[in-house]
Amino acid sequence: MFAPSRTRFGAQAFLAASLAAWALSAGAADATFPDAAASDPARLGWMTGSPPSPDRTLRFEDGSYFRFPAMRWSVSNFRQLMPTVNVSRGLGAPSALPSALRKDIGTLRFTPLGATTPMTWDASLAATYTDGILVLHRGRVVYERYFGVLKNDGQHGAMSVTKSVVGTLGAMLVAEGTLDAGKPVAHYVPELAQSAFGNATVRQVLDMTTGLKFSEDYADPKAEVWAHAQAGNPLPKPKDYTGPRSYYEFLQTVQPEGRHGEGFGYKTVNSDVLGWVIARATGRTVAQLLSERIWRHLGAEQDAYFTVDSIGTPFAGGGLNTGLRDLARFGEMLRNDGRVRGVQVVPRAAVEDIRRGGDKAAFVKGGYPLLQGWSYRNMWWVTHNDHGAYMARGVHGQRIYIDPKADMVIVRYASHPVAGNAANDPVTLPAFEALGRHLLRTAR
Amino acid sequence: MFAPSRTRFGAQAFLAASLAAWALSAGAADATFPDAAASDPARLGWMTGSPPSPDRTLRFEDGSYFRFPAMRWSVSNFRQLMPTVNVSRGLGAPSALPSALRKDIGTLRFTPLGATTPMTWDASLAATYTDGILVLHRGRVVYERYFGVLKNDGQHGAMSVTKSVVGTLGAMLVAEGTLDAGKPVAHYVPELAQSAFGNATVRQVLDMTTGLKFSEDYADPKAEVWAHAQAGNPLPKPKDYTGPRSYYEFLQTVQPEGRHGEGFGYKTVNSDVLGWVIARATGRTVAQLLSERIWRHLGAEQDAYFTVDSIGTPFAGGGLNTGLRDLARFGEMLRNDGRVRGVQVVPRAAVEDIRRGGDKAAFVKGGYPLLQGWSYRNMWWVTHNDHGAYMARGVHGQRIYIDPKADMVIVRYASHPVAGNAANDPVTLPAFEALGRHLLRTAR
Repeated sequence: MFAPSRTRFGAQAFLAASLAAWALSAGAADATFPDAAASDPARLGWMTGSPPSPDRTLRFEDGSYFRFPAMRWSVSNFRQLMPTVNVSRGLGAPSALPSALRKDIGTLRFTPLGATTPMTWDASLAATYTDGILVLHRGRVVYERYFGVLKNDGQHGAMSVTKSVVGTLGAMLVAEGTLDAGKPVAHYVPELAQSAFGNATVRQVLDMTTGLKFSEDYADPKAEVWAHAQAGNPLPKPKDYTGPRSYYEFLQTVQPEGRHGEGFGYKTVNSDVLGWVIARATGRTVAQLLSERIWRHLGAEQDAYFTVDSIGTPFAGGGLNTGLRDLARFGEMLRNDGRVRGVQVVPRAAVEDIRRGGDKAAFVKGGYPLLQGWSYRNMWWVTHNDHGAYMARGVHGQRIYIDPKADMVIVRYASHPVAGNAANDPVTLPAFEALGRHLLRTAR
Repeated sequence: MFAPSRTRFGAQAFLAASLAAWALSAGAADATFPDAAASDPARLGWMTGSPPSPDRTLRFEDGSYFRFPAMRWSVSNFRQLMPTVNVSRGLGAPSALPSALRKDIGTLRFTPLGATTPMTWDASLAATYTDGILVLHRGRVVYERYFGVLKNDGQHGAMSVTKSVVGTLGAMLVAEGTLDAGKPVAHYVPELAQSAFGNATVRQVLDMTTGLKFSEDYADPKAEVWAHAQAGNPLPKPKDYTGPRSYYEFLQTVQPEGRHGEGFGYKTVNSDVLGWVIARATGRTVAQLLSERIWRHLGAEQDAYFTVDSIGTPFAGGGLNTGLRDLARFGEMLRNDGRVRGVQVVPRAAVEDIRRGGDKAAFVKGGYPLLQGWSYRNMWWVTHNDHGAYMARGVHGQRIYIDPKADMVIVRYASHPVAGNAANDPVTLPAFEALGRHLLRTAR
């Protein structure tokens, strides 16, 4: 499907590009890939040995690291491949994540979309190439498993789940009045005045209803997504390179197409612009702000981190990496209306604004046949199902799924061979809904 | 003094090279550098702003990051510049580091070597371009200060203090019988059979009494240290590059000079070889082993990390980065004969072997006029003074100083403009000794 080796800058270009690819690659689900067991990165032994054997050595520069199945190792080891910036948890003791494991979850049955025979929850994990999954019910860990090279003390790429985390910071700043969602982007970032973003409002950026000439069609070598990835690649540029050399330089080149506010268009650059707006409004990068405002208050067990471009800009569109259990703490904070251990970390109004969702009519224009009736708000995907569930979604299967009615949070890190979530949604969506219904039904 | 921009591979070459430079650059102490206040990296605003202004932007590829005074920012931010591998602290609660701050330390006076007028302890911090310093007395924090961009939750390059940490792992494995110190290196790493290391014993590597043709003379563009740095640089190699592409490939090229076991010769490659021997003997990289055997048992507040080469090899000669408070925990463990919270983490025999020191006659041949009567053992510097103090030393002023008689541990991270510790030893050595005497004298 993808051919990272063909790209001019190698695999980082591919990585950055693939983060936004989810809607585009559903067709590739027909391709044949080795299954989860056959592609298990621990079994294949990537980067194991001193030195690893040549056929198990992955290098950032040549793109080998992001080809399937090697990618299954890399998503748990981005920092070994590229520069990153820390998101400190602070120095205190982690918060408790009490365990109350349930044996009835693994055998839970659901029917994948388009299928006629049911699948068990346990079987869904291999079907979605899960690296780690954790379910909280009423704040207690009822299910937690790790596969391949991800462990409970590891950190995994959140891919576009990053957008929802940055969107949460944005919603927080709006709720507090630090950001005026009605103001144009150029008010906060004058350098963007001549770009497509200049006259878009912060709200339109938060909800991705900007009108942008920004193609994420990876089959087209002239698609803007390649230039975006090249700009953000931290490796030295070729001598004859004349393009933008950072995310910020690239964002200034994005041209308008269509009108702002009319339709949902899922484009990674909106998140990068939000990151820039946040940086200007607060004097903090998204990495610093995430640490200061959220990660230090979560009781996180581990620091998180962002990948960065060559001038240290955290990749707000897809560069976050976290421990799975800390991602669960983040989801649980939202389920609790923004509170952690009785302290209001994220304003309740911000959480309510996410949960309430966005413009359904605008969402229809985004073209997601599997996501009927959904909306997008503050960089979160809102299902509007009867449990009021909302989710963060990243390529290759990353998820935060919050089911308020069932008091449930699911977090999943995965390395599905197909970037687009449309390839795993037929399993993921009914599985998560079924578990929510099951936990609600069996709650005491 | 150094001219990083002249090197073929830019600043990483310079960095790696400078890690072993400490003995060579004392002459440069005569050069004029801005003082600690004028070179304060927070005040200068490196990498601050979105984006940072061009004259405050530091890039890994062009070497700007390791020129003084920019280097003062970089030593606290290596992971933003290059790939790294995590050293997990585990997921538990940190151990207590009880505070009992003393006001009498800052005004303590001592006389720098070669000086006639005394200096206060507080004044010594600026004189040594200290970024952070912490003193433990009987396990309690009696002094703790941070400067510039280092905070208590930050991580700083340990430079060659890394060697002592890796040497501690080596001494541990010897004490446990996992490593036979009398065996030749080729027994553990057959690939090194034809190199100078092949017939050196593990003990000779641990004590750096190997006879190696390995110049760390930075004034000589043909010095082997440049090839070492080029091999370990994680950036893509130039097209016409034909040399070694990893630390391991480089180590195989090191040729003999003189005889093993006769004299102390401080050469970074010994530590890299030790790292390789450890990896082969345990099946763990030094990063993994440090986490599994020590960091998880320290009650560390933060993960640590190593910089890596292009195939993920942790730089055992100088790539460790830690929080200052965790480095203090490491030193305190050694002061307590290897125990943490009552658990024997490092075998007592290993700590005793470090403390006992090495061959003083061999040390004399290393040529350190300021370090009369010292020795080198398991990659630690042993003073043999009347307090039995021993230390880890890294370029630009990094230190762990353990004074058993005074029940004192000092850890310091610094960014002195001169790499060689001979430039700061005239202040550092009498300051640390004076504080040991003071704490012993005033102990109740």
